[in-house]
Amino acid sequence: MNVLIVYAHPDPNSLNAALKHYAIQRLQTAGHAVQVSDLYAMEWNAKLAASEIPKLENHRADILREQEKLLWADTVIFQFPLWWFSMPAIMKGWVERVYTLGFGYGVGEHSDVRWGDRYGEGTLTGKRAMLMVTAGGWESHYSPRGINGAVDELLFPIHHGILYYPGMEVLPPFMVYRTGHMDDARYAAICEELGQRLDTLATTPPIPFRRQNHGDYDIPVMTLKSEIAPGVEGFKAHLHQPPSLL
Amino acid sequence: MNVLIVYAHPDPNSLNAALKHYAIQRLQTAGHAVQVSDLYAMEWNAKLAASEIPKLENHRADILREQEKLLWADTVIFQFPLWWFSMPAIMKGWVERVYTLGFGYGVGEHSDVRWGDRYGEGTLTGKRAMLMVTAGGWESHYSPRGINGAVDELLFPIHHGILYYPGMEVLPPFMVYRTGHMDDARYAAICEELGQRLDTLATTPPIPFRRQNHGDYDIPVMTLKSEIAPGVEGFKAHLHQPPSLL
Repeated sequence: MNVLIVYAHPDPNSLNAALKHYAIQRLQTAGHAVQVSDLYAMEWNAKLAASEIPKLENHRADILREQEKLLWADTVIFQFPLWWFSMPAIMKGWVERVYTLGFGYGVGEHSDVRWGDRYGEGTLTGKRAMLMVTAGGWESHYSPRGINGAVDELLFPIHHGILYYPGMEVLPPFMVYRTGHMDDARYAAICEELGQRLDTLATTPPIPFRRQNHGDYDIPVMTLKSEIAPGVEGFKAHLHQPPSLL
Repeated sequence: MNVLIVYAHPDPNSLNAALKHYAIQRLQTAGHAVQVSDLYAMEWNAKLAASEIPKLENHRADILREQEKLLWADTVIFQFPLWWFSMPAIMKGWVERVYTLGFGYGVGEHSDVRWGDRYGEGTLTGKRAMLMVTAGGWESHYSPRGINGAVDELLFPIHHGILYYPGMEVLPPFMVYRTGHMDDARYAAICEELGQRLDTLATTPPIPFRRQNHGDYDIPVMTLKSEIAPGVEGFKAHLHQPPSLL
């Protein structure tokens, strides 16, 4: 299959750079075609301009190239270090500029039974996406009662709001914690774990987010119907299954 | 008091620009001193460079200026349109570059009873912060069972992870929804509501996040002690009071 890696780290000697290199080799060895958008190396313009909000026409060449890569891909991997509990600015600016009106949002019709093609439907329907994230903190710091916030909630705005929004199925993230404590043995184990995830990109069950236009939400208020997960509030209400099963 | 407004919108004719103008006037009329970091107008460099990770010395002049503004301020307002469920890339890049090691993180000592000065303690202790956010979606879309995710959870990574982390108290956000449907009467009502929030910046109760080093967390795993909010998981576990009271 075709795999696009959208990558954001400024240091070519970083752990992220090494893992990107490993991932490309692993995927190519398995017969996949790989493209990489190395945002720092591309000197990606991360600032959405006033003239780009919202324009259907006159997109810049850099945006069109990234949209073509997304349309080409069967699976998109977003690889980045967790900086201040989200993706680096340069990658956020990639989303803001590449997800143009009519491509990333504002797709489909609005009616009494549909509210546009989004959250499970859209331009990128049929594709899969996975985050590949490094963090300096310990895994326990990101656990369900960890002080940094549970990782599945920290990543929800990206998983649900950026990847699932235009239609991609979202695989559980590949996480590397405590990146300051790395040695050869640990790095080898991480590569092996990553390799398993890359080998199973096509078969790993996605996070079971609820689809917008399939009966779970009242339109146009877009709240869960009272009989759906009654009493449940917050991010976890938008999952078919309780988060403990994820 | 001294108020710093960190502002990110590229269009000087936008609703955000009008609200910024209103806020400055309201604050100055009340006798406060106001500085504005208008990130687009400043052509802020949003890309953290490899050479900036992590350096204690040799900060660039643009970073030092922003750090001085933060130290000068009693209250910091971050004003932005919600793009893809978070702050614009240019503002994220402001955080990444201005929050240097020894200023925004890596402050204080690590021991059996402390894990650095963070989450309620740090360089910005004693200051208050508030988000001022516009969104195109309806308020119901961001309600506790709304499809975009509950707004208090969407903003948690910013509130807790960016504002509370270096020590600021965080006020409830000022939100404007459905920005595409604006007329003179609604704009006037929004300004009045905003004015009330600006008039009470010094007295509004902050979001009751738990302090890291005051007994609620086990160190160094940094998980809530079993007797604290037993059974509660996710972002809401890090509040002293149940979120329904917020």
